[in-house]
Amino acid sequence: MRENRLRTVWARGGAIVNGWLAIANTFSAEVMAHQGWDSLTVDMQHGVIDYQAAAGMLTAISTTGTVPVVRVPWLEDGILMKALDAGAYAVICPMINSVGDAERLVAATHYAPMGRRSFGPIRALLYGGQDYPKHANETIIVFAMIETLQGLDNLEDILRVPGLDAIYIGPSDLSLALGCTPAFDELDPPAAEAVEFVIAKCREHKIVAGIHNGSAEYALKRIGMGFQFVTIGSDARLMAAGSQQVLAAMRAGLESGN
Amino acid sequence: MRENRLRTVWARGGAIVNGWLAIANTFSAEVMAHQGWDSLTVDMQHGVIDYQAAAGMLTAISTTGTVPVVRVPWLEDGILMKALDAGAYAVICPMINSVGDAERLVAATHYAPMGRRSFGPIRALLYGGQDYPKHANETIIVFAMIETLQGLDNLEDILRVPGLDAIYIGPSDLSLALGCTPAFDELDPPAAEAVEFVIAKCREHKIVAGIHNGSAEYALKRIGMGFQFVTIGSDARLMAAGSQQVLAAMRAGLESGN
Amino acid sequence: MRENRLRTVWARGGAIVNGWLAIANTFSAEVMAHQGWDSLTVDMQHGVIDYQAAAGMLTAISTTGTVPVVRVPWLEDGILMKALDAGAYAVICPMINSVGDAERLVAATHYAPMGRRSFGPIRALLYGGQDYPKHANETIIVFAMIETLQGLDNLEDILRVPGLDAIYIGPSDLSLALGCTPAFDELDPPAAEAVEFVIAKCREHKIVAGIHNGSAEYALKRIGMGFQFVTIGSDARLMAAGSQQVLAAMRAGLESGN
Amino acid sequence: MRENRLRTVWARGGAIVNGWLAIANTFSAEVMAHQGWDSLTVDMQHGVIDYQAAAGMLTAISTTGTVPVVRVPWLEDGILMKALDAGAYAVICPMINSVGDAERLVAATHYAPMGRRSFGPIRALLYGGQDYPKHANETIIVFAMIETLQGLDNLEDILRVPGLDAIYIGPSDLSLALGCTPAFDELDPPAAEAVEFVIAKCREHKIVAGIHNGSAEYALKRIGMGFQFVTIGSDARLMAAGSQQVLAAMRAGLESGN
Amino acid sequence: MRENRLRTVWARGGAIVNGWLAIANTFSAEVMAHQGWDSLTVDMQHGVIDYQAAAGMLTAISTTGTVPVVRVPWLEDGILMKALDAGAYAVICPMINSVGDAERLVAATHYAPMGRRSFGPIRALLYGGQDYPKHANETIIVFAMIETLQGLDNLEDILRVPGLDAIYIGPSDLSLALGCTPAFDELDPPAAEAVEFVIAKCREHKIVAGIHNGSAEYALKRIGMGFQFVTIGSDARLMAAGSQQVLAAMRAGLESGN
Amino acid sequence: MRENRLRTVWARGGAIVNGWLAIANTFSAEVMAHQGWDSLTVDMQHGVIDYQAAAGMLTAISTTGTVPVVRVPWLEDGILMKALDAGAYAVICPMINSVGDAERLVAATHYAPMGRRSFGPIRALLYGGQDYPKHANETIIVFAMIETLQGLDNLEDILRVPGLDAIYIGPSDLSLALGCTPAFDELDPPAAEAVEFVIAKCREHKIVAGIHNGSAEYALKRIGMGFQFVTIGSDARLMAAGSQQVLAAMRAGLESGN
Repeated sequence: MRENRLRTVWARGGAIVNGWLAIANTFSAEVMAHQGWDSLTVDMQHGVIDYQAAAGMLTAISTTGTVPVVRVPWLEDGILMKALDAGAYAVICPMINSVGDAERLVAATHYAPMGRRSFGPIRALLYGGQDYPKHANETIIVFAMIETLQGLDNLEDILRVPGLDAIYIGPSDLSLALGCTPAFDELDPPAAEAVEFVIAKCREHKIVAGIHNGSAEYALKRIGMGFQFVTIGSDARLMAAGSQQVLAAMRAGLESGN
Repeated sequence: MRENRLRTVWARGGAIVNGWLAIANTFSAEVMAHQGWDSLTVDMQHGVIDYQAAAGMLTAISTTGTVPVVRVPWLEDGILMKALDAGAYAVICPMINSVGDAERLVAATHYAPMGRRSFGPIRALLYGGQDYPKHANETIIVFAMIETLQGLDNLEDILRVPGLDAIYIGPSDLSLALGCTPAFDELDPPAAEAVEFVIAKCREHKIVAGIHNGSAEYALKRIGMGFQFVTIGSDARLMAAGSQQVLAAMRAGLESGN
Repeated sequence: MRENRLRTVWARGGAIVNGWLAIANTFSAEVMAHQGWDSLTVDMQHGVIDYQAAAGMLTAISTTGTVPVVRVPWLEDGILMKALDAGAYAVICPMINSVGDAERLVAATHYAPMGRRSFGPIRALLYGGQDYPKHANETIIVFAMIETLQGLDNLEDILRVPGLDAIYIGPSDLSLALGCTPAFDELDPPAAEAVEFVIAKCREHKIVAGIHNGSAEYALKRIGMGFQFVTIGSDARLMAAGSQQVLAAMRAGLESGN
Repeated sequence: MRENRLRTVWARGGAIVNGWLAIANTFSAEVMAHQGWDSLTVDMQHGVIDYQAAAGMLTAISTTGTVPVVRVPWLEDGILMKALDAGAYAVICPMINSVGDAERLVAATHYAPMGRRSFGPIRALLYGGQDYPKHANETIIVFAMIETLQGLDNLEDILRVPGLDAIYIGPSDLSLALGCTPAFDELDPPAAEAVEFVIAKCREHKIVAGIHNGSAEYALKRIGMGFQFVTIGSDARLMAAGSQQVLAAMRAGLESGN
Repeated sequence: MRENRLRTVWARGGAIVNGWLAIANTFSAEVMAHQGWDSLTVDMQHGVIDYQAAAGMLTAISTTGTVPVVRVPWLEDGILMKALDAGAYAVICPMINSVGDAERLVAATHYAPMGRRSFGPIRALLYGGQDYPKHANETIIVFAMIETLQGLDNLEDILRVPGLDAIYIGPSDLSLALGCTPAFDELDPPAAEAVEFVIAKCREHKIVAGIHNGSAEYALKRIGMGFQFVTIGSDARLMAAGSQQVLAAMRAGLESGN
Repeated sequence: MRENRLRTVWARGGAIVNGWLAIANTFSAEVMAHQGWDSLTVDMQHGVIDYQAAAGMLTAISTTGTVPVVRVPWLEDGILMKALDAGAYAVICPMINSVGDAERLVAATHYAPMGRRSFGPIRALLYGGQDYPKHANETIIVFAMIETLQGLDNLEDILRVPGLDAIYIGPSDLSLALGCTPAFDELDPPAAEAVEFVIAKCREHKIVAGIHNGSAEYALKRIGMGFQFVTIGSDARLMAAGSQQVLAAMRAGLESGN
C-alpha cells in the first residue's frame, strides 16, 4: 500500500503544511496540488463541495505526491466511509465531544475487528494499491475536531480512544464555544489557553495535533508549540486576498496618477 | 436595458480593471465578483471552462455590479451568440486577422440590420431587462484580438469596421507571432513596438484598447499608455501565487527554526 | 448584514408568497427568481436536488431581491449547517415531532451560545455581508415542519422552544399522518381541523405559520386564516400544468377542426 | 429500427405538436416528456444547454414515446453528428441560406453515399436499435431554418436539395431579417407574407413545414395553413407564465382583501 | 402503478439477475440497462455516486424494463426517502443489525400508517404512475443487509419485522465481521456457514434472500441454494476485467511474435 | 517537459496499445488508466463526452503513466487548441481529406512559427512541466484520420505535410466511404485494400499509422502489418460485452438447471 506521508513526516518529528480546498473543481484542486503543499484537505463541511465533487478532486490531487485529506460535514458513518472509499488518506471529523463520539469515529473508519467500516474501497484500491484492505487500518489517519466545552472537558478520555490518531482545532469554533470572537490567529485569552491545553495534552498522550491558521507567520508559531499539522489559507481565500492586493495597487496607482 | 458600465467608464475617459476566470465554478466566480473588479472575463478559450459552466458563472457575476465578459474559444458564430444569449455584456474574440474576420465578428454579435445574430436572448433578458432586444446592438461590446502579423498588417482596416468597439491584446500570442518569447509584461522589442503601434492606431480611430498584464504595476503603465481595459491575474494564478508565497514563508521559517 | 425581508414583512403583519424549486438548475432558479416571488424555497427533501445544485441555485436567486430558503432533506446537523453556509436565509426542516427535535434544530442553526452551529459561513458572507457572523442568529429564520400525530401532540411545547421562528405545514404529510388522503387544498376533516389547530396555537404563541398550497385561491384563504408564509406551485408543477393547458387546447382545436 | 413517429404522422397528413426545452436538466426533460407532447426539442441554440446536458435529456425523453429532436447551435458538422449519435431523431439547423448550406446540412446528417456523416451512433443504437446504421438515412429527419432574406430568395432551390425533409421557421428571426419587430404570433405584414410564402412553396415541393408559436391558438391557425410541426411554449416560458398567473392572482386577492 | 417485476418473478419462484452500477453516469447506466439485466442497482454506498447522479441514472434505467434499485449509503431517513422519490423500486440498506434498525428501515420507506415516509414521490409518479401513492407500500421492496455478528444474532427477529421484504448479503463484509478474509465467492468456512444460516432462516420465514457474487458460476450456485436475487459484476469491474483480458492477449501475442 | 511515451515507443519500433473512452466520467477514466493501457483516447467525436468532462478525464488519466490522447469532434481550431491546453499529448482529428485540411490541423496544433496555436497551455503546464511551451511543438503528436475517398486520393500529399505525425484509420468510416458495410475487423475487400494502401504509404513516408480494432487478435494482425498504434475496445463496449458474457452464462445455467 502506498505510504501515508503524514505518518512518515510525523514519525521523524516533522510538521505537515496543509492547504485547504473550498471550491468544487477538479482543475483548481490540481493547480493547488502542484504548488507543493504536503497535504490538501477537501473541506466538505464549510467548503461549497459535496461528495461527487470531492471524489473528482481526490483524483486531481492524486496526480501529485500531495496527501489527500477530507473534512467530512459531520460525524455520520455514511460520508466517513464514502470519503475513505474515494481515496482519502486522512479524514477530519467535526464535533467530537465525548468518548462515545470518538469511538464511533474510529469504528466508522476502520475495518473489523477494529471497527465496522463497510468493505468496498473502490477508488482507494486504485490510489493505495491492491493491498489496501490489509493495511488501511494502520495507514489511514483519523483527526477528531475538539471545538466545544464538552470536547475540552473530555479531552483526556478522547485521547485515550484506540485508533484515534490526531486532534484538529478550528480556532473559530473553539473561540465561539468559549464565548470569544471567532478568529484564526490572535485569539482571545480563553481560546488561546484552550489551544495550549490541547497541545499539552496531545503531547502527553503522544497524539498529533493540527490547527487552522490565517497566516504562515502564525502557522510557524503553532509548529513551535508542537503542532505537527498546520493549515494555512484556502483556494478561495488566496484568490480573494490576491485580488484585494491587485485591486489596492490599482486604486493607489490610479489615484496617485491623477 | 441595464447600462454597460464599460461604456460609461470609457465615455468619461476612465479605465476598466478586469479580472479573469479560468476555473469552471459558480462559487469561485461569485467570490471573485465580490472583490471589486470592474469586470470579470470568463475565459472559454484557454480557461478550463465550457459553455454550460460559463452560463452559471455569468449568473454568479450577476449577483454584483461587476460587468460580465466572455472570451470565446474561436471566431465561431454558434458560441458567440450563445455567450451573448447567456448574458455576456462584452465578448472578446481571438484571432481577428482581417477585415473579413472583423466583419464576421460584428455580424455574429449584432441583430439585423447591423448583423445576423439569431434572436433568443434567453438569459440576457433576465440580466439586461425586457428591452434588451431594442438596445443590445448599442450596449454590447465587441473586442477583437490582434495577435498575428496579418492582424497587425490589417489593423487600420479592421479598426474601421463599423460595430467593432475595442481591440484586445494577448501579449503572449503577439510575442509568439513576432518570433519573441511569450511573456505578459516585459516584452521583447518587436512585441513591445507592436503594442505601441496598436495603442497608437486605436487612439487615432477612437477605438478602445485592452491588454492582458502580469502585475498591477504593468497594468498601470498600460493605462498610462492609453489602454482603457486592463486585465491582471486570474483566479487560478492568484491562487497559485498566494500558495507560493505561503509555502515560501513556511519553508523559510522552518529552515531558520532549525 | 442584509435584512431578511421575511422578518420585515412579518413584522408589519404581512404575508410572504413563496415559490418552490424542485429542478436542480441554476438557470431555471434564476428565471423563477425574476418572476417576483417574495421568497423561493430550494427543496432538497422532495425536489430532485442535492447540495451542490442547491448552492448554485442560491447564487441564482441572489441575482434578485427574492429571499433564498432551503428545505433540508431531514433533521441532520450536517446539511442544516451546509444550507446556511451556502447562504440560505431560512431553512425548513421536516419531521419536528418533539421538543428534543426542535431544540436540536435550533442548536444546529444558531451559533454559540444559542446553539452549536459550526463556524464557516463561506457563501453566506458574500450574500449577507461581512457582519453576517454577528447578526446571523437574529436574522436567519428556522421553520419546523409539523407533520405527524406526535408533532401535533407536542405542538405547544415545540412552539415554546426559544429560537424557533416558524412552523411549516405540508398538508399531504399531515393528511397521511391522520389517516386521510394526501391533498394540497381541500383536506379531509381531520386534516383540516389539524391545520386550524396549528394556526390557532401559532397565533397564541406569536410564532409565524406557513403552509403549502395547490392554488392561489387556497393560498389567499390560508392568509385569511392567519398564515404568513404561503407556498404555491413549483417550477416543475407550473411547467407540467402549463403543458397540460396547451396540449388540451391543441387537442380541442384539432378535434373541432375535423 | 424504431419508427420515427414524425414520419408516420406526417405520412397520414397529421401535424406534430412539439414542446421546447431550454433548461439543461434531466428531470425537467422527463417531466415534459410525460405531458404528452408528440415531440420535444432540446434547444442547443438559444436554450441554456450544451451537448453533455442534451445527451442526458435525450435519455430522459426516451423514457416515453415522445420523439427526441435537437436544435443545434449552428451549421457545424461536429455538433450535428454528435446530436444524431446521441439519439436525436430529428435535427433543426439554423441559418440555411443557400443550396450550399442545405447540401452541407444533408451531408453532415446522412451516412455515405448520401452524405459524409461519420460512423459511431453510440447512443442512437440503444434508442433506435441495432439496425440503426442501415435505416438511419431514411428515418432521421432534417429541418432547415429559413430565417434570412437570402434564405427566402433561395427557398425553392433549397427545397429541391435531396435529403432535406422539412423547413422550420422562427418568426422572430424572420421578422428581424425583414426589418420587422421580433414576435411569435401576430407578425408585421412583411413577415406574415414571408410565412405564407414559405408554406406555399413547401406544399408545392412536398416538404414539411414547421413553425414556432407563442400560443395554442396560433399553432392551430398554423396547422390550418398547412404547417405539420408546430412548437408552442417552452419549459422556461411555461414556468414563468404560470408564475405570473399565480402571482397576479395573489396580488389581486391580497389587494381586494384589504 | 407499474408492476415491480422483482415481486412477479419471486412470486413464481424465480430468481433475479442483478447488475451493479458504480460509475456516476447516465450513458453508462443506459448501456447497462440495455444488456438485459433483470434489475440494476445504483450503488450509493461504495460506488462513486451521489444522489444527483443516481437520480439521472434511474432515469436512464427507465428507458428499459430493467427494474431500478438503489443501495443507500447508510440507514438514514433522508437518503432512503430521496432514493424512493427518485423512482427506485427497491432499496438495499446496509448495516441492519437489530430489530430497531429494521423497524426504522421499514418506517422510512413506507407511507403512514405503515411507516413515516414523507409524501413527495416526485419522479416516482412519472415512473410508477399517478396511482403510485396508493400502491407504493405494497410495491416497493426493502432489502436489509446482514453483515455483522449482531445482525446474525438478531436475524430471526429481524426477519419477523413486518414490511421487510428481503435480506441482502455482501460476502466481503460478512467475512470481515467474522474474522475472515474479504471475498466474493469462495468464502472461509465461518462466512460460508453464515451464508447458509441466512438462506435457511430466510426460507423458513418466507423472506427473499439476495447475495453479491464474483462470477456467474457462483451466482448459479447461490440460486441453487435458494437465493432469489443474485448480483454479478459491476460496470467498473466488467470494464476492468475486459481490459485485463485484452491486454493479456496483446502481451501474449506481442511476446510470441518476437 | 514530460516525455511523450508514444514517441519513445515508436522510436524503438514498438507499437502502442490504446484504450478508448466513451463515458464522460472521471472515475471510469481512472479505472481504465490503472489497467495498463499504453495510452487512452478520450473520444469527443463519437463518445458521449464534451470538453468539460474530457478535461477531468485527462486529469484522471494523469494519475498514471498512461499517455492521454483526445479525438476531437471535428477539424475546428477552437476545440483542437482546448484539447491540447487541457493536457492531451496527442490529438486525433477526423476527416482530413486534403493537404489544406492537414495544414490547417498542423497550424492549429503548433505554436508559431510552425503554426498558429494560441498561447495558454493552462493544464498542459501542470502535466507537461514548466518548459512545455518550449518543447510542445516537438512533443505533441497529431493524428489525421483518413476516412474518405478524397482522403485516400490525397494521401501521399497529406503524408508530406510537415508537422503531421501519424494517420489514424476508423475502419467503419473507411468502409462506408468505399461503399462497404461498416465493420471493425473483417473488412470487405475494397476497405481491406484501402487499409493496406494506407499502411504501405505511411511506411514509405515514415509516418506512423494507427487503427481501430474490434479484438486483440485483429490488433495483433495490424501490428504485424506495420501499424504502431492499435485501439481495442472501449470502456462502454467492454462493459457491454462483459455483461453479455455474464448474462449468457446465467441463462445457460438456469436453463440447464431446470
